[in-house]
Amino acid sequence: MADIRLFEKDPYAPIRYVYEIDQVLYRGKSAFQEFAVVTNPYFGRMLVLDGVVQFTERDEFYYHEMMAHVALHAMESPRTVVVIGGGDGGVIREVLKHPTVEKAYLVDIDTEVSRVSREFFPTVGSALSDPRLVDSPMDGAAFLDGFDGTADAVLVDSTDIVGHARSLFTPEFYESARRVLGDRGLFVTLSESLHFHLPMVREVQKTLKKAFKTADLYTAPLATYAGNWWCFAVGSNGADIRKPARKPVTPTRYYCAEVHQTCFLPRFLYDRVMEEGRESL
Amino acid sequence: MADIRLFEKDPYAPIRYVYEIDQVLYRGKSAFQEFAVVTNPYFGRMLVLDGVVQFTERDEFYYHEMMAHVALHAMESPRTVVVIGGGDGGVIREVLKHPTVEKAYLVDIDTEVSRVSREFFPTVGSALSDPRLVDSPMDGAAFLDGFDGTADAVLVDSTDIVGHARSLFTPEFYESARRVLGDRGLFVTLSESLHFHLPMVREVQKTLKKAFKTADLYTAPLATYAGNWWCFAVGSNGADIRKPARKPVTPTRYYCAEVHQTCFLPRFLYDRVMEEGRESL
Repeated sequence: MADIRLFEKDPYAPIRYVYEIDQVLYRGKSAFQEFAVVTNPYFGRMLVLDGVVQFTERDEFYYHEMMAHVALHAMESPRTVVVIGGGDGGVIREVLKHPTVEKAYLVDIDTEVSRVSREFFPTVGSALSDPRLVDSPMDGAAFLDGFDGTADAVLVDSTDIVGHARSLFTPEFYESARRVLGDRGLFVTLSESLHFHLPMVREVQKTLKKAFKTADLYTAPLATYAGNWWCFAVGSNGADIRKPARKPVTPTRYYCAEVHQTCFLPRFLYDRVMEEGRESL
Repeated sequence: MADIRLFEKDPYAPIRYVYEIDQVLYRGKSAFQEFAVVTNPYFGRMLVLDGVVQFTERDEFYYHEMMAHVALHAMESPRTVVVIGGGDGGVIREVLKHPTVEKAYLVDIDTEVSRVSREFFPTVGSALSDPRLVDSPMDGAAFLDGFDGTADAVLVDSTDIVGHARSLFTPEFYESARRVLGDRGLFVTLSESLHFHLPMVREVQKTLKKAFKTADLYTAPLATYAGNWWCFAVGSNGADIRKPARKPVTPTRYYCAEVHQTCFLPRFLYDRVMEEGRESL
């Protein structure tokens, strides 16, 4: 296992999470990252990219539901959705639960992610053959630059905000998203942990506010992401993501109307997040 | 470090949390447990009992505030509060921020906890000399049995629900608490993680419902407790813990009116927690 960096210290997580591994089902390398699919007695199969757990069979639904459903339920009838990253298909699976969605673009630069997901995580990749999916394997920034339509939502399901994923967190990228979304669309991106990465959470909010009229922050409890108290950052030019516009799609295991209403960070805490120089709440 | 069980596998947590340790400031043993005070570059000083991190200097406020303030803010004027366990003084510190509190009983069977806290965690143990505190170092169940007054709140800040702490999670103990609380008091106890200990969360709810008219569940994000998505279980005979009765005391770092309103588990998820046999949401 020495050359899979599963157990190496995460340079920006102060707790190292160590998992018992029963089997290594797959190891490989794409042009972009190292892959491992392993099994754990509790979590089942786990997808590990560059040594970081991306999701597990047992609890992937928290992240994938929360990435997709908050923005999409804030609209009456989302039709066009762009998922950047997320080649595994977990977010796409949730997006396509919305019956009004006509087109879901999947923009993951690394086609290996979808291949590995179909092979080892059939329940996560279950919607990867849906006819409404438009597979667009390319750089997310380049995709938005070349996109001449309008999207109802742009959802960024990338790896952590380091390395090549950083291009998805720049002012230029947010500007492209804003253009594609128009006045009524919503932008959602992962935004790391309120426990361990507060300066990064703040930086994403500040950058979003340069491109969008408003930025917001909601959270979800994710056991396998360092810091656990995980953030999703929102950019909007007018749409109110806080208000569900209709009943939840089914089935879900975590997302529900009450989660929608309670997942946003209270103003008292949001103001602390935004205090310059603050390292933790 | 071999004889401090810091890094041993937690038998009921599927992820092992590993911390870098700079210094071991103290190691000792009481009649009840093994103590270690260590320092970590991120968390600062950490109190470790029987190999389990109890709190860290950096983030202790989440747990201590949430253990004390939800119940106490649901009352106009709490006067008498019983804290069982919690010898470190963290919960007592929060309780005594409420100006109406006249007496706070601290019932930790292990007097070493307070001694170590005063010495190594002065900001946590800062209220241990408050004149309103009544130090009652004895078994929590025996204390409640012999208590002939009425309390507004009983807060159980014990170690995990294993070993000698189990006596604080029995129907008999809850029955004693109910008697002491009368119709208007509130009972709060830790209740482990919604991610990793769902059957235990359910067991506590079911046991509480035998003694109290209603049981409830609220959560907080705790980075150093296995599973992180931590629960507090509530027993009530009529008082409504969900409604803050007045403005928050100050200062707090996490608790606020909006946290109070959003920390309770949504009914959709609560119903899943209570499904017999369910191992995770």
